[in-house]
Amino acid sequence: MTERRLDPTTGEWTTFATARQDRTFLPPAGLCPLCPTTDPARPTEVPRAAYDIAVFDNRWPALSGHPPEPDVDGTALYEVEPARGAAEVVVFTSRHDATLADLPVSQVARLVDVWAHRYAELGARPEVAYVFAFENKGEAVGVTLHHPHGQVYAYPDVPPRVAVEMRAAREHLARHGTCVWCDVVAAEEAAGTRMVLGRGAVSAYVPFAARYPYEVHLSVRRHAGSLLDLDGAERRDLAEVLSAVLRAYDRLHGFSLPYVLSVHHRPTDGGDWDANSPLHVELTPLHRTATKLKYLAGSETGAGAFVADVRPEDAAARLRELLA
Amino acid sequence: MTERRLDPTTGEWTTFATARQDRTFLPPAGLCPLCPTTDPARPTEVPRAAYDIAVFDNRWPALSGHPPEPDVDGTALYEVEPARGAAEVVVFTSRHDATLADLPVSQVARLVDVWAHRYAELGARPEVAYVFAFENKGEAVGVTLHHPHGQVYAYPDVPPRVAVEMRAAREHLARHGTCVWCDVVAAEEAAGTRMVLGRGAVSAYVPFAARYPYEVHLSVRRHAGSLLDLDGAERRDLAEVLSAVLRAYDRLHGFSLPYVLSVHHRPTDGGDWDANSPLHVELTPLHRTATKLKYLAGSETGAGAFVADVRPEDAAARLRELLA
Repeated sequence: MTERRLDPTTGEWTTFATARQDRTFLPPAGLCPLCPTTDPARPTEVPRAAYDIAVFDNRWPALSGHPPEPDVDGTALYEVEPARGAAEVVVFTSRHDATLADLPVSQVARLVDVWAHRYAELGARPEVAYVFAFENKGEAVGVTLHHPHGQVYAYPDVPPRVAVEMRAAREHLARHGTCVWCDVVAAEEAAGTRMVLGRGAVSAYVPFAARYPYEVHLSVRRHAGSLLDLDGAERRDLAEVLSAVLRAYDRLHGFSLPYVLSVHHRPTDGGDWDANSPLHVELTPLHRTATKLKYLAGSETGAGAFVADVRPEDAAARLRELLA
Repeated sequence: MTERRLDPTTGEWTTFATARQDRTFLPPAGLCPLCPTTDPARPTEVPRAAYDIAVFDNRWPALSGHPPEPDVDGTALYEVEPARGAAEVVVFTSRHDATLADLPVSQVARLVDVWAHRYAELGARPEVAYVFAFENKGEAVGVTLHHPHGQVYAYPDVPPRVAVEMRAAREHLARHGTCVWCDVVAAEEAAGTRMVLGRGAVSAYVPFAARYPYEVHLSVRRHAGSLLDLDGAERRDLAEVLSAVLRAYDRLHGFSLPYVLSVHHRPTDGGDWDANSPLHVELTPLHRTATKLKYLAGSETGAGAFVADVRPEDAAARLRELLA
């Protein structure tokens, strides 16, 4: 059963994809489905003997271009729709044991280009309202395959967290006449206390009201709505800063740090978003210490109210120390 | 450092409480701070040799009646405020090794009375906009003490998840002229496919668009905004249904099931909420199978879009089979 259902008590859609229960779960390295195909009798998901970076449709998609008909009928109270959109896998490298932090900056820059390409191509589809590239890294955030990879989802609506951001940006614009994202980057550079690294077009900082321990946002210093607005040098700056922050992350507790990486862009729903520059990359680790995780418990899960344990200025100072 | 900071890019507050980093973490049973005090030389948090149920202020509060002054100054862009409110611990029983599911219904009913009492008392404080009772159960959701207990937070604003619910209810009322919560309970009872248990005043069902595996909501059949609207028999019904569902949960995978329990009420911010009856209890487990957890990864963390693996009708059927 694959379908989307609207919760009338929240106005939010849940995407159901029950076949995901059977998806490959932490296979041994020799059976990795993301490695190059070395034995034609045992093809992996990538039918090539070698590749630099690979993108393909997820075999267990939550969203797809040709979704099945829903399992239940909708009612006036309960809306149902096919799970239309896309779910792609992006394999960062053919090296099974690497992480994004291990890769040369040129390869990270190639990944940034792939994100931009998928944003353009998926965003151009009429049924797609939002393109979302992300990486789940580490078993602590639930990865089911260790080979370094991320995903791109194309949603048929603007998803809830992004809708919150867009509403806040619109209210800020109405009240102050300015782009909130531009104001935030300028404020972080002026204050300096939460800055992690600024290089060329890109600034990395711990958000003022960070919800996750050692959370870092990467923003572009100038007004930019998506990666398509960046030239090659700016994309390279983004790759360099991202790579440097990920290497600092791995020095934080002495192990390869799990995190979720999310790329936020302008929606592609045809709305008028030009006054805002939401392009940024969010890095959200879960480790509040080397041995303790931040769990999303009652306050976060039930009320949506985040309680944080790490002072953003302390997190930023620590990460600055750890930059190579 | 304890303070609240507003994120201008989302309009949401994060509560910082860095002293929580030092809170007691999974102590051995002999040093449990929630057990009765048996040796006056080593008092626990409960200075009594015996008790039925205990409520006291959290020693590491995120929110409190007399919060310290914020650590940073606010700006026009970045608002800061003291972390005003309350954070209480509710110890469900003096029995260290029990769980809520193990307790007699009479004790669960006593807990429901405590929730109602705290809602009335904390909600009457002028600085409190929302009272939120919850339980984090099991290490999978990050409990730091095994002794059965929950918490009550009193927030100075209506927290984000509740604000989403309130907005959806308001829009439903404007469009249909009815209370969305009443409509949902009626629809679930009529359909039956997602019902888990109905008894007296209370219905338990798997929500139509459930975000968590085996998620169950307990609602009151009649229009009720908070536990204060329920009489003794209705509260007893709630305790009975809750107890039955928790016992079914423990049979689901053959172990005591971790979950977050959240009690949703009307806000106490003085707003006009009478047209809605948001009172319900949400049970959100994380186990999608006996050995696999639902992680909040990229789609949920970065985009707020939930992807679910378990069909609500299947979850409800399974839980019905497991009711004693």
